[in-house]
Amino acid sequence: MNTETRIHDAQALWQKDKDHFIHPFTDFSTFHEEGCDLITDSDGIYVQDAHGNRFIDGIAGLWCVNVGHGRREIGEAMADQATRMAYFSTFNNLSNAPAAELSAKLAELAPAHLNHVFYSCGGSTANDATIRLVHYYFNRLGKPAKKRIISRNNAYHGTTYLASTLTGIASNNWDFDTLDHLVTHLSEANCYRRPEGMSETDYCDHLVREFEDTVAEIGADNIAAFIAEPIMGAGGVLVAPKDYHKRMQAVCRANDILYIADEVVTGFGRLGHFFASEAVYETQPDIINCAKGLSSGYAPLGATLISDELYDVLSTPQGPGGVLSTGFTYSGHPVSCAAALKNIEIIAREGICENVREVGPYLEERLASLSHHATVGDVRGSHFMMCLENVADKNTKALFPIEARVGDRIAFEAQQRGLIIRPVGHLNIVSPPLIWTREVVDEVVAILDAALTATTATLQADGYL
Amino acid sequence: MNTETRIHDAQALWQKDKDHFIHPFTDFSTFHEEGCDLITDSDGIYVQDAHGNRFIDGIAGLWCVNVGHGRREIGEAMADQATRMAYFSTFNNLSNAPAAELSAKLAELAPAHLNHVFYSCGGSTANDATIRLVHYYFNRLGKPAKKRIISRNNAYHGTTYLASTLTGIASNNWDFDTLDHLVTHLSEANCYRRPEGMSETDYCDHLVREFEDTVAEIGADNIAAFIAEPIMGAGGVLVAPKDYHKRMQAVCRANDILYIADEVVTGFGRLGHFFASEAVYETQPDIINCAKGLSSGYAPLGATLISDELYDVLSTPQGPGGVLSTGFTYSGHPVSCAAALKNIEIIAREGICENVREVGPYLEERLASLSHHATVGDVRGSHFMMCLENVADKNTKALFPIEARVGDRIAFEAQQRGLIIRPVGHLNIVSPPLIWTREVVDEVVAILDAALTATTATLQADGYL
Repeated sequence: MNTETRIHDAQALWQKDKDHFIHPFTDFSTFHEEGCDLITDSDGIYVQDAHGNRFIDGIAGLWCVNVGHGRREIGEAMADQATRMAYFSTFNNLSNAPAAELSAKLAELAPAHLNHVFYSCGGSTANDATIRLVHYYFNRLGKPAKKRIISRNNAYHGTTYLASTLTGIASNNWDFDTLDHLVTHLSEANCYRRPEGMSETDYCDHLVREFEDTVAEIGADNIAAFIAEPIMGAGGVLVAPKDYHKRMQAVCRANDILYIADEVVTGFGRLGHFFASEAVYETQPDIINCAKGLSSGYAPLGATLISDELYDVLSTPQGPGGVLSTGFTYSGHPVSCAAALKNIEIIAREGICENVREVGPYLEERLASLSHHATVGDVRGSHFMMCLENVADKNTKALFPIEARVGDRIAFEAQQRGLIIRPVGHLNIVSPPLIWTREVVDEVVAILDAALTATTATLQADGYL
Repeated sequence: MNTETRIHDAQALWQKDKDHFIHPFTDFSTFHEEGCDLITDSDGIYVQDAHGNRFIDGIAGLWCVNVGHGRREIGEAMADQATRMAYFSTFNNLSNAPAAELSAKLAELAPAHLNHVFYSCGGSTANDATIRLVHYYFNRLGKPAKKRIISRNNAYHGTTYLASTLTGIASNNWDFDTLDHLVTHLSEANCYRRPEGMSETDYCDHLVREFEDTVAEIGADNIAAFIAEPIMGAGGVLVAPKDYHKRMQAVCRANDILYIADEVVTGFGRLGHFFASEAVYETQPDIINCAKGLSSGYAPLGATLISDELYDVLSTPQGPGGVLSTGFTYSGHPVSCAAALKNIEIIAREGICENVREVGPYLEERLASLSHHATVGDVRGSHFMMCLENVADKNTKALFPIEARVGDRIAFEAQQRGLIIRPVGHLNIVSPPLIWTREVVDEVVAILDAALTATTATLQADGYL
């Protein structure tokens, strides 16, 4: 394609996008003028925009393209399935081969007691469906008062009406409504901003005690479940203190509260294992939710993995004409499941979890070397799930004013240098495809180093530093 | 593939499915023993099970495979996009080419004032996101009391927590929870079971008056929107009286209530037009939701089409750092949008809407000829969206007891004869791919004729008739 045609197309596409596509999480103070960057091509660790500019993808699409871009064999698996049998209902007594195969595969990969799969189209619907099933479970058990869900401030669990209520990021619900009385949010586990002078161990005690106090206050008889991401994602890649998850699960067990692990981001290799709950955090959730890396984003797909114990109740017949009345047209979509099966095959065949366990610590170490920059208050995360927290003052940890748009500035400077990272307020998230090598890490860190230097200069020029 | 291998595979798949896949809307009184029929292959109007049995697909997968099965060109469009650029975030200022193109195409196909598209992964999330956006809209307008949504008994709007609350099918929420105080359900428009002796015109007056009375009671200041399927789908393919929709919209207009058309089933040709709201029912909804036929089910996709007037408010900047905080990872998924673009191209190129307008009335007429059967109380619907309501007594319209499973019996007899139709309680739904010809209709009606005769015999043998 010659450059002139490409630019012509780019202009027309940009206009169509601006005129007709309402994007998620759009800042309309800039969108009406600036519109969008169109990402049109991709290959491995790279994506390319409509003008032919190539970037290292530092966000794996959006925490999801775990096996990297341009995998022809996934595309072909999808095309084969779409042509052979693209879609048929999975309601009641109908099924399809890829959904059956994937269910068995997920049961094999998940912790031993999680053997039953309920499908959805992504993380939001996985979490939404899960809470509905949890309520159904306790209703069937004759415990209809067990309704409250315990979540955490700064948790991100999606954007259906229910999932946005689980979500604890205050700015996410600006002018939106959420459900009253269904969800109680505990403090997030934020080691960087924990109370001054408190050790990590004491901080963990403090958080566990808050949970225990909350259970005592609300009453275990009124609480259905606790939901947590192993590492908080969009809320700021917050790594909990050691043993936090085990101890939170112990509180759940002691109080007949279900433990739900939202592994939408951490699942399928991001922390070096197919699932992090047991392999990394030694927890045995009653339910694990996954999406994103499940299909590496090649097709919309979410899955809720459910324990044998819960399934026994969920699958008890209701009575004549009664059915388990939930599920989506696209639950167990053949093409999405075929994409997931091929994706899982690739992860296993190429040793992608092993790559994350090998390169992840190096990424952590090299990103930590950026801490000397004036604005870098904290570098945190684990393996291929990392974040920079930017501050105006490292001693006080004070933030820049919102209008400084520090996250946007750093992302812009990185993108000018060939790297896409994600700005979220004052944070910058690095959540790459799981195929980065040490050499790529070196290149990325060099770009970030230059981007941070440039940002410090513009912040100084604009009087913010 | 030889028959022995196929049967071996079928047994193994069946076992995996039964052990690990929790299906939507499952009747566990039979599932534990019988498991699932695996649909593994397809072509045009046919699907085939794991044992090699071929069936005419009378339900288009689940109201969705509008262009028919096995369309290689859709599979190839998906593979091309998956290989070129399978996924990248569409959040904020990022986009992709298929999403931009599809948005412009939908704006072109939809009624003139609906020019803005918000994407989701199917009908449930389209409806869920819509209600969230409607609440946001009124919050931004400074009318935060406008919250209540008016829906209708027997409406089907999906199965997220919010969408299941919009849904008015009582059995759908057996042992599940729904939201309190958010939704008020009016009577459905059910011409077959309207009050004895009331004319269709009087019945329409009665339904409109019920809406007006409800608005007066709740107060227009507390009502955000009215949502309705042009023809109720899963609730029983209920066709409203003439002018019902226009008159309901007039009540909305008079009371500053938004009119939302749920065209998840009726969109993309099922009634002979891309959208039925304006072309068939002469309404101008503020919002149209679509899914299913949008991609003919080849990939999960939903879309909410929003008016210029609403977009003006939704796209007004909130203030520093404020964003329109909703949307899914897979909103505007490139592969799903590529599937939809190719699907729309096929519908237009092959004159599929024209086929529905030509063959639809013939399907109506030929199905009506089954009314002489003892159990057929009503044959209703429009074009490629049809239903048989089965009754124990045609004069009193009394139903069979649930345990007679009359819908299941008829579906079973049809399937034995090579046709899949959908049983929903005492109903049987016929919602085929939109490529049926008159010859196929004749074959289908002959099968149904035999199936109904056989069912009458088994009902008599079991003492139900």
